[in-house]
Amino acid sequence: MPLFDRLKSDCSADWDAYVRHAFVEQVGAGTLPEAAFRTYLVQDYLFLIQFARAYALAVFKGRTLSEMRSAHAGVKAILDVEMDLHVAFCGGWNLSEAEMEATSEARATTAYTRFVIDAGLRGDLLDLHVALSPCVIGYAEIARRLASETRALDADNPYRAWVAEYAGDAYGEVAAAAVDKLDVLGAELVTEARYPRLKALFAQACRLEADFWQMGLDGA
Amino acid sequence: MPLFDRLKSDCSADWDAYVRHAFVEQVGAGTLPEAAFRTYLVQDYLFLIQFARAYALAVFKGRTLSEMRSAHAGVKAILDVEMDLHVAFCGGWNLSEAEMEATSEARATTAYTRFVIDAGLRGDLLDLHVALSPCVIGYAEIARRLASETRALDADNPYRAWVAEYAGDAYGEVAAAAVDKLDVLGAELVTEARYPRLKALFAQACRLEADFWQMGLDGA
Amino acid sequence: MPLFDRLKSDCSADWDAYVRHAFVEQVGAGTLPEAAFRTYLVQDYLFLIQFARAYALAVFKGRTLSEMRSAHAGVKAILDVEMDLHVAFCGGWNLSEAEMEATSEARATTAYTRFVIDAGLRGDLLDLHVALSPCVIGYAEIARRLASETRALDADNPYRAWVAEYAGDAYGEVAAAAVDKLDVLGAELVTEARYPRLKALFAQACRLEADFWQMGLDGA
Amino acid sequence: MPLFDRLKSDCSADWDAYVRHAFVEQVGAGTLPEAAFRTYLVQDYLFLIQFARAYALAVFKGRTLSEMRSAHAGVKAILDVEMDLHVAFCGGWNLSEAEMEATSEARATTAYTRFVIDAGLRGDLLDLHVALSPCVIGYAEIARRLASETRALDADNPYRAWVAEYAGDAYGEVAAAAVDKLDVLGAELVTEARYPRLKALFAQACRLEADFWQMGLDGA
Repeated sequence: MPLFDRLKSDCSADWDAYVRHAFVEQVGAGTLPEAAFRTYLVQDYLFLIQFARAYALAVFKGRTLSEMRSAHAGVKAILDVEMDLHVAFCGGWNLSEAEMEATSEARATTAYTRFVIDAGLRGDLLDLHVALSPCVIGYAEIARRLASETRALDADNPYRAWVAEYAGDAYGEVAAAAVDKLDVLGAELVTEARYPRLKALFAQACRLEADFWQMGLDGA
Repeated sequence: MPLFDRLKSDCSADWDAYVRHAFVEQVGAGTLPEAAFRTYLVQDYLFLIQFARAYALAVFKGRTLSEMRSAHAGVKAILDVEMDLHVAFCGGWNLSEAEMEATSEARATTAYTRFVIDAGLRGDLLDLHVALSPCVIGYAEIARRLASETRALDADNPYRAWVAEYAGDAYGEVAAAAVDKLDVLGAELVTEARYPRLKALFAQACRLEADFWQMGLDGA
Repeated sequence: MPLFDRLKSDCSADWDAYVRHAFVEQVGAGTLPEAAFRTYLVQDYLFLIQFARAYALAVFKGRTLSEMRSAHAGVKAILDVEMDLHVAFCGGWNLSEAEMEATSEARATTAYTRFVIDAGLRGDLLDLHVALSPCVIGYAEIARRLASETRALDADNPYRAWVAEYAGDAYGEVAAAAVDKLDVLGAELVTEARYPRLKALFAQACRLEADFWQMGLDGA
Repeated sequence: MPLFDRLKSDCSADWDAYVRHAFVEQVGAGTLPEAAFRTYLVQDYLFLIQFARAYALAVFKGRTLSEMRSAHAGVKAILDVEMDLHVAFCGGWNLSEAEMEATSEARATTAYTRFVIDAGLRGDLLDLHVALSPCVIGYAEIARRLASETRALDADNPYRAWVAEYAGDAYGEVAAAAVDKLDVLGAELVTEARYPRLKALFAQACRLEADFWQMGLDGA
């Protein structure tokens, strides 16, 4: 079984707790308190900065020019595109970039981002990608499910733009490339003796992502 | 003003929230629920492993043989002495090493430890020591205050051994050496333009330490 | 005095030995043996890959979004532009990318590149930039001097395209930005107590750059 | 085949060029110029400092407490024992510690040590151990061969103490433990797809070690 499917299937309880978290369901139903979403948006801004650092680490750890370039596409996507989109999106919620910059990281933000970075430094490129994967890949799965199962895209859902963004084809391709990268590295580097550690890493990353949603909810 | 005093004074609200956290006060009064203390003990075991990694990073980042040796004393203290003491101490609370190893890190554990490690890699040796300092130095201040102000060392306080350990001369010397190291590095490396970042790092480390106490309380 | 000028002036012997190395003078005079230049070109290809990793490390170590973006411009310049230019340029010398990739790093290549990377990991962003600076800034100084003092740009100099590239305005701006970055970081972070280590780092980087030229000469 | 044997056998040309380098043969025959040996001794002092950093990195990268402790034994061996032995030994050659500290690293020293450190940060614990292994394990093989095949231990060989040290049982155990560690990590982590990179890493480390001997010879 390709690595990502295997991880998701072996950690299904942690995966489901993340992708079906109450925050997510309330986004889909349009019932999430606005304060929760705003808390999330601000922390997600701080999160993206750390994720750009994690992708820069993937460039640093790349073993070939082609691996470096593929990780670099991730840095570029965040620093050149996503940050600006995020700032524009937040502007629609009356959150200025200056305000977001001046906010302290919530502990859930610190915990997940630094866990990912440390996983990359302690281990190899595969460890780094496993730790990154719940975020990159999970957002696409969450948004596509909401778009198909719920009234998430209805005109009266205040969060429809967020769902549409992550359910869209552009983000879908980013997530598919991340699955692919993981599967390729998995085929090259996973032994049965190594697998249990990767599983534990993936499960912990899922739990830290679920905490991130919870931090949003707690902000309301 | 020497660096540590300056940081503590400029971040006094965060420092006080950490060293006077309810968990700490209840330890001093002997009223902390046992389940809270046991939660803390197990996570502190996992915490120490990561702190040994942080001190190993300080060896790696040492600029002179003497700096490497001084950081190495920290690794040795944890791996050769404190871990065994901690395991013995936990044995008295019927917590086995196997049980502690098999426990997942709480998010507060992940957040503080990985924040420290990342601060060290992102910055220099001083950044690493600033991020480490609330833990190393704070424990001595907490325990000495409890020992002098409260009935913490009374025979009926179930936590008296913990207080006595960190209020003792041996640990006091460890903490004094950490203050010293920080002050020496501060005198060498701090400019007024750099100071605000060090203050922010110290304040965030204090908050993450307070979260660690809170995680213990929440375990009850 | 701004940091770069101070370093260059305090390490003038090492700087001069680098920027006036026999390899450089023979490039300017058009008398360098072709085998020496080809050896250099192949190793410079391998060198650039490591330099992209060093700039990725600068993104990772960036303390603000703006610092991360500025380091990211360096990664982009290398991975998206310079590598392709270099490959095209080498094509003109009948060196294929496959051939360059299959070549082992010369020790001078390994020494300078890994020294830079380690300086960045052991120290902070300023240490990393100091270690990078002889390369980035020196190439512009070398090429501009050759262009003005020698017959380097004459039609019969086989190396005129190389000189023109690094003496040109585009590269001149890259080098000026690097001087600027160093001066800004210097104003923020340099204390007199710290300066001697930065000087030693800069001097060693100059010597390792001179070795890189020598490696080219030895290839003939 | 266990990993170390496989690497040594697949890189036999590079391994032999290292363990049978002219420097080594002249040590065994007692014909090495004293200036060459003194050059080597001074650089080996600087080398050991970097190797202590590499072992500290192995502590940092350890995945279990037991792995951290085993790497820590390496840091302790260097910082608490070998450095002092080395200084004492060098004293016998009228080289003071102050003199050695004041010497700049030769490029061969910089190249091998930083290559090892970078291999560890770019990859995982196995990459780090593969890069370290020619040094740790090779010295034992070299000294034992010299002790058995040549007149290396004769009273009139000025280098007999060096040979005796590395041919002795104490060092033999260090080397055997390093082989073991490599074989255990290899059994856990090596796939056929990964092996070629490990082989290339090992071969490059052997070449950089041979350069270290050559640097000694060139010092005469």
